[in-house]
Amino acid sequence: MKKITIKEIAKITGVSSATVSRVLNDNGRFSEETRKKVLDAIEKFEYRPNVVAKSLRTSRSKTIGVIVPDITNEFFAHIVLAIENLCVPRGYSVFICNTSESEEKEKMYIKDLEAKGVDGLICLSGIMDVPADVTRQQIPVVCIDRKPNNQHVIMVESDNVTGGYLATEELIKKGCQKIVMLRDERGVSPMQNRYVGYLQALADYGLPLDKNLVINVQVDVFSAKRAITELIQAGVAFDGVFAGTDWLAFGALMALKEHHVQVPEQVKIVGFDNITVSQFSSPAITTIHQDKAKMGETAAKVLLDIIDNGLDHVKTRNITLPIELIRRETTG
Amino acid sequence: MKKITIKEIAKITGVSSATVSRVLNDNGRFSEETRKKVLDAIEKFEYRPNVVAKSLRTSRSKTIGVIVPDITNEFFAHIVLAIENLCVPRGYSVFICNTSESEEKEKMYIKDLEAKGVDGLICLSGIMDVPADVTRQQIPVVCIDRKPNNQHVIMVESDNVTGGYLATEELIKKGCQKIVMLRDERGVSPMQNRYVGYLQALADYGLPLDKNLVINVQVDVFSAKRAITELIQAGVAFDGVFAGTDWLAFGALMALKEHHVQVPEQVKIVGFDNITVSQFSSPAITTIHQDKAKMGETAAKVLLDIIDNGLDHVKTRNITLPIELIRRETTG
Repeated sequence: MKKITIKEIAKITGVSSATVSRVLNDNGRFSEETRKKVLDAIEKFEYRPNVVAKSLRTSRSKTIGVIVPDITNEFFAHIVLAIENLCVPRGYSVFICNTSESEEKEKMYIKDLEAKGVDGLICLSGIMDVPADVTRQQIPVVCIDRKPNNQHVIMVESDNVTGGYLATEELIKKGCQKIVMLRDERGVSPMQNRYVGYLQALADYGLPLDKNLVINVQVDVFSAKRAITELIQAGVAFDGVFAGTDWLAFGALMALKEHHVQVPEQVKIVGFDNITVSQFSSPAITTIHQDKAKMGETAAKVLLDIIDNGLDHVKTRNITLPIELIRRETTG
Repeated sequence: MKKITIKEIAKITGVSSATVSRVLNDNGRFSEETRKKVLDAIEKFEYRPNVVAKSLRTSRSKTIGVIVPDITNEFFAHIVLAIENLCVPRGYSVFICNTSESEEKEKMYIKDLEAKGVDGLICLSGIMDVPADVTRQQIPVVCIDRKPNNQHVIMVESDNVTGGYLATEELIKKGCQKIVMLRDERGVSPMQNRYVGYLQALADYGLPLDKNLVINVQVDVFSAKRAITELIQAGVAFDGVFAGTDWLAFGALMALKEHHVQVPEQVKIVGFDNITVSQFSSPAITTIHQDKAKMGETAAKVLLDIIDNGLDHVKTRNITLPIELIRRETTG
């Protein structure tokens, strides 16, 4: 028996996949003519509901699970809020699970959400490999921010390469020649991409890469403060800092203030994320705006689309959202 | 048949309720002698498991639901993290639900968590009335921060009255005579209690209450900034601000800076919560520390205790946690 998909039925009958799905689920609007056409095609081509299991589950739990590495991180919290704001009005409950960056907890929660019969999962900046038993179960998974190694996962992320480029370019255009980059020591994909942008900007503007100015730190304010303090104390010359997150930028700012280095006169700073600390610090921090609301909303839309219409329905596996340079006082 | 409780069995056998519970569930450590004693008593007094349903449910879901009004608020996020940190090592999954301060969403989530068979609920700063169908279902509920109207809910909160008192006293001791209070316009219970502390301190130090200095605002930074700007523009004299939250304190600080009023020389400020904005603002904000980790941990412990041993087992229905004055630059 030929395994025909919803998409093929749609093609044959000349209606959209969403309409085929609506007819199959007897849910939503369609004409009597459409219904007949679709049901005829289904009979003729022996379409079997279990071929595209997701699109035809009749008893949905109407629940989405969201896996978050750190709920106290404002960046993640705003993405989660956007997911919530999109899903709840469409009748879905959103269960948020905090993993404290623990792979063990992440696996536990994924299993547990599965056992509770969630219709889909959104993983924020999760572990490198989505467990095989999840992907086997065909529960739709959409990842945000950090790219897992699995090939077939749908991914939503900011354009981190361009972000890193714009941040570095801003410093160069304002006269910086020796630009420190503070980056997450774990080498996660978004930070790697920001580093690529940094390298490209240096190359484009003919500045040499000084490996001593590329500093790997834990992503917290005090690690960044310590790293910049050490540079100052070691007498390393630098006139710009591109910090991989706003909190790292703030830590750098603290160290510079403490050592009476004038910002932006002597050293300029650009952060990343555009969270409140960059807006409200003094001086306010120039940063790269990640559209957190759009990230959450996009991931949620794609997930609900897969739940309703099957994975075949989704055209783009990698969705990259534009970022924006926000100029503030640290490069003023 | 006499309805005997675990507590009574414990009394009769001379072991703790927790031990009786462990024997009944055949879970954890106890001696053979203890087991015999407990089981004998159970037989003799015809103890029936369904008398204290919670303590004997054999098929637990091992899941806790947490209802949060605003996941992007650092204060709540840290409480949630503490709940998570306590429950997960004890084998519980924690499902977090964000309500965006919507009563409708809160009710939806409570129903949904119930339907998923959670063993207990923790409500952070929730609605005024826990729905009757929840309390009827006998799912244990512990509330944090805001007190609902229901009588029989277990409540964990900071000592907000003393907090309000210490904040006001700090301003008075540093020489302030005309102290503005910025408070949440919704009149929620923690803010009411902070106001009571403010009133008591004024009275104790013989300062008159000036109703024009008690300002109701929305709890966001810009509302506070606007309120203080209006006071300055109206020419109202004041030399201290007790802000009901750190974000309100930060908004007040922004307004004062913008109008070139020196802090702390001309106006002193005390906030509430001790979240990062108070630590990292410039000048750093004196505040009242709420022990967020302890609040989450305490609520989680009580909830797991009720799940294991029944509501009868809990001695205190109202748990008040101590607060602490953190002196920083705004009263320096």
